[in-house]
Amino acid sequence: MIENHITLKKSEMPTVWYNILPDLPRPLDPPLHPLTKQPVAPQDLEPIFPPSLIAQEVSSENFIDIPGEVLDIYRLWRPTPLIRALRLEKALRTPARIYYKYEGVSPAGSHKPNTAVAQAYYNKKDGTKRLTTETGAGQWGSALAMACQFFGIECTVYMVKVSYEQKPYRKVLMQTWGASVFPSPSERTKAGRDILAKDPNSLGSLGIAISEAIEDAVNTPNSKYSLGSVLNHVLLHQTIIGEEARLQLEKAGESFPDIVIGCVGGGSNFGGILFPFMRDKLKGTRDFRAIAVEPVACSSLLKGKYDYDYGDVAKNTPLLKMHTLGHDFIPPAIHAGGLRYHGMAPIISLLYDTGYIEAQAYHQSEVFEAALLFARTEGIVVAPESAHAVKACIEEAKKCAEKGEEKVILFNLSGHGFLDLGAYDKFLNEGLPDVSE
Amino acid sequence: MIENHITLKKSEMPTVWYNILPDLPRPLDPPLHPLTKQPVAPQDLEPIFPPSLIAQEVSSENFIDIPGEVLDIYRLWRPTPLIRALRLEKALRTPARIYYKYEGVSPAGSHKPNTAVAQAYYNKKDGTKRLTTETGAGQWGSALAMACQFFGIECTVYMVKVSYEQKPYRKVLMQTWGASVFPSPSERTKAGRDILAKDPNSLGSLGIAISEAIEDAVNTPNSKYSLGSVLNHVLLHQTIIGEEARLQLEKAGESFPDIVIGCVGGGSNFGGILFPFMRDKLKGTRDFRAIAVEPVACSSLLKGKYDYDYGDVAKNTPLLKMHTLGHDFIPPAIHAGGLRYHGMAPIISLLYDTGYIEAQAYHQSEVFEAALLFARTEGIVVAPESAHAVKACIEEAKKCAEKGEEKVILFNLSGHGFLDLGAYDKFLNEGLPDVSE
Repeated sequence: MIENHITLKKSEMPTVWYNILPDLPRPLDPPLHPLTKQPVAPQDLEPIFPPSLIAQEVSSENFIDIPGEVLDIYRLWRPTPLIRALRLEKALRTPARIYYKYEGVSPAGSHKPNTAVAQAYYNKKDGTKRLTTETGAGQWGSALAMACQFFGIECTVYMVKVSYEQKPYRKVLMQTWGASVFPSPSERTKAGRDILAKDPNSLGSLGIAISEAIEDAVNTPNSKYSLGSVLNHVLLHQTIIGEEARLQLEKAGESFPDIVIGCVGGGSNFGGILFPFMRDKLKGTRDFRAIAVEPVACSSLLKGKYDYDYGDVAKNTPLLKMHTLGHDFIPPAIHAGGLRYHGMAPIISLLYDTGYIEAQAYHQSEVFEAALLFARTEGIVVAPESAHAVKACIEEAKKCAEKGEEKVILFNLSGHGFLDLGAYDKFLNEGLPDVSE
Repeated sequence: MIENHITLKKSEMPTVWYNILPDLPRPLDPPLHPLTKQPVAPQDLEPIFPPSLIAQEVSSENFIDIPGEVLDIYRLWRPTPLIRALRLEKALRTPARIYYKYEGVSPAGSHKPNTAVAQAYYNKKDGTKRLTTETGAGQWGSALAMACQFFGIECTVYMVKVSYEQKPYRKVLMQTWGASVFPSPSERTKAGRDILAKDPNSLGSLGIAISEAIEDAVNTPNSKYSLGSVLNHVLLHQTIIGEEARLQLEKAGESFPDIVIGCVGGGSNFGGILFPFMRDKLKGTRDFRAIAVEPVACSSLLKGKYDYDYGDVAKNTPLLKMHTLGHDFIPPAIHAGGLRYHGMAPIISLLYDTGYIEAQAYHQSEVFEAALLFARTEGIVVAPESAHAVKACIEEAKKCAEKGEEKVILFNLSGHGFLDLGAYDKFLNEGLPDVSE
């Protein structure tokens, strides 16, 4: 019998995060202050982030202990299963062995709680009473709402107005976990009021919501801001995914993957599964292909510049050296809301620039076609973001079939699609347009 | 470290279903033919069900092997976790040890695939090319759609029109898995046309949808009908839940539960977790309390008669001896759609009648209050149906706190609530009415 579902015991769950920073082929270029354009000092970030997370952002330690209180929460749903996609393999008639790490089993339905819980913990420890953040479709906001509830921290979420009105379910999820959710632009901040003065009917954007969340945190006592992707400490927290996957692949009798695949918006779920394997590639002891999958509509690796850019429209954030389509780029309204970000995590950008990672981009109709095949073979209805990884996996598995190659393909199934069935509806009953940036 | 998440290896998964029929304190009264009122012979059921399932319905074997092809599908998500609710215990300051079996990890999000997969398998084996069924909110219809897709059987679902129009997400889920979904009443059957002739704007009911699904199956070549609860073979397939839970409780170092709790609509998820423990109670070797939890709005055990009744409004089904509120009873529109059924599984009814099971009923506002506490401690946002079990569990745990009793409470968390967030929205932002039948 092939074990198609590889579980770890609680006692086997990794208790460290892997910090890739000291192993990178060259150091990251420093973030620059948005006004002075000089490298930011750690204390420049203190109005926004707690000291513990600022320290993690620049840590030179290779492994960082996961605090017991964070492990206790992780244990509500972790270790997540690694699943051999036997039925998908059969449908594709491929000799490849396909494994997926399923992060959709978290109560929020995605990988986002891995960092949300860690960020809430360190904020609590450092005296933060309240966290603010932005959210688009709500995947990140709901993860942070849950994490804040667990640590007794208030949570305020600025949700892009068009999503707030059109996708009420994730708003309800945030409220169920006790968060206050405001449509952005709002009257609560100067950034929001300025936008509304110009356009009272503004539907908002992620860039505006980030500006509001930061302004709120900076101007409210005991408040900090929290970001769900892009930054080094966020990717650090996600490495629990890859550390578990390494152990599970070993249990499955596989020595190492030949291909590791993840979708990329800001880069955190891909970094999370990839870095613990990339460790060996950076040391030169193992080789494999790492594929970042983007939507054609928002393809920062394949189409963006590798340059310093702001994280938000209002230019409030430090400048980061990253692959970017420009901080004022507004991505087309594709259904994979979590991939609609103009920039890419600096670490992922550097690994792409140095040739350690390759990228692929797909249109949303072919991505949903892949999601449909996955649902009809493996059962799971995946999030539109994760469907990009499924599509790339299927393409690689087909190549293996053509060449008769028994490769081991590993991809991260970052979340389920129960709250994205409206997109499936459009795909099944109307058809989806393919849009480019 | 307390293992709060008790997993089983694939190789430890039970490979038999437990058939409680031969162990019941007295034999079930036979189903009666709807026209002759005489006991139905197995062959009377052949236009509706395949021979394998008819045989299981009256089997006297104590254990029935789960076919390998069914196990292969179960392994996509089974064994499901048994989770110790440490954070809920702490919030309640109870010395009770609370465990929940989490069936929401299935791709359909509930326990329903346990029988859907088995029914699709046996139908396939017996030559059925197409299955019909009815669904209310869509939990059952989506499970059967997935199962039929896996076995290459066509699936046609009659979905109560009010749900078809108001809850489109589960309709999309069924279509994603390849099913044809029609709002009921439809023009496709005489039963539907008769209703529409009287009331062209009829919003439908489960009773009408059952009549349409049966009529379709009987009149279409190679088609059979499939039911998601109530019948003996359905509860049989669900016993995988309790068989796993027994092994997991043992692993957790617990000798036996003191209380086993489940919500009841038709009775299948409660029967599923309960029967493998009830086996010992029926033999007199163990004692514990078994609590069936109903909505006040549709309380067939506490308020219904124990008598022969039809399963549908149109009186097409055999008469079953069961607790019933009457086949023409239309339950109020509570959010726990899966509990809105007038009757109760004959086996559960008999165990209740003979004192082996007790019942509790709760109003929906207190049930959602319990669900909120659960989401804020354990993370999982539960389905409104499962929230009834959560409520009863909390009440029992509070009693343990008052009396200082270290009881072991086990309940079945039959499904997640991602597709029920509209109900949470109403609860959080408007308040829910408490309705009685």
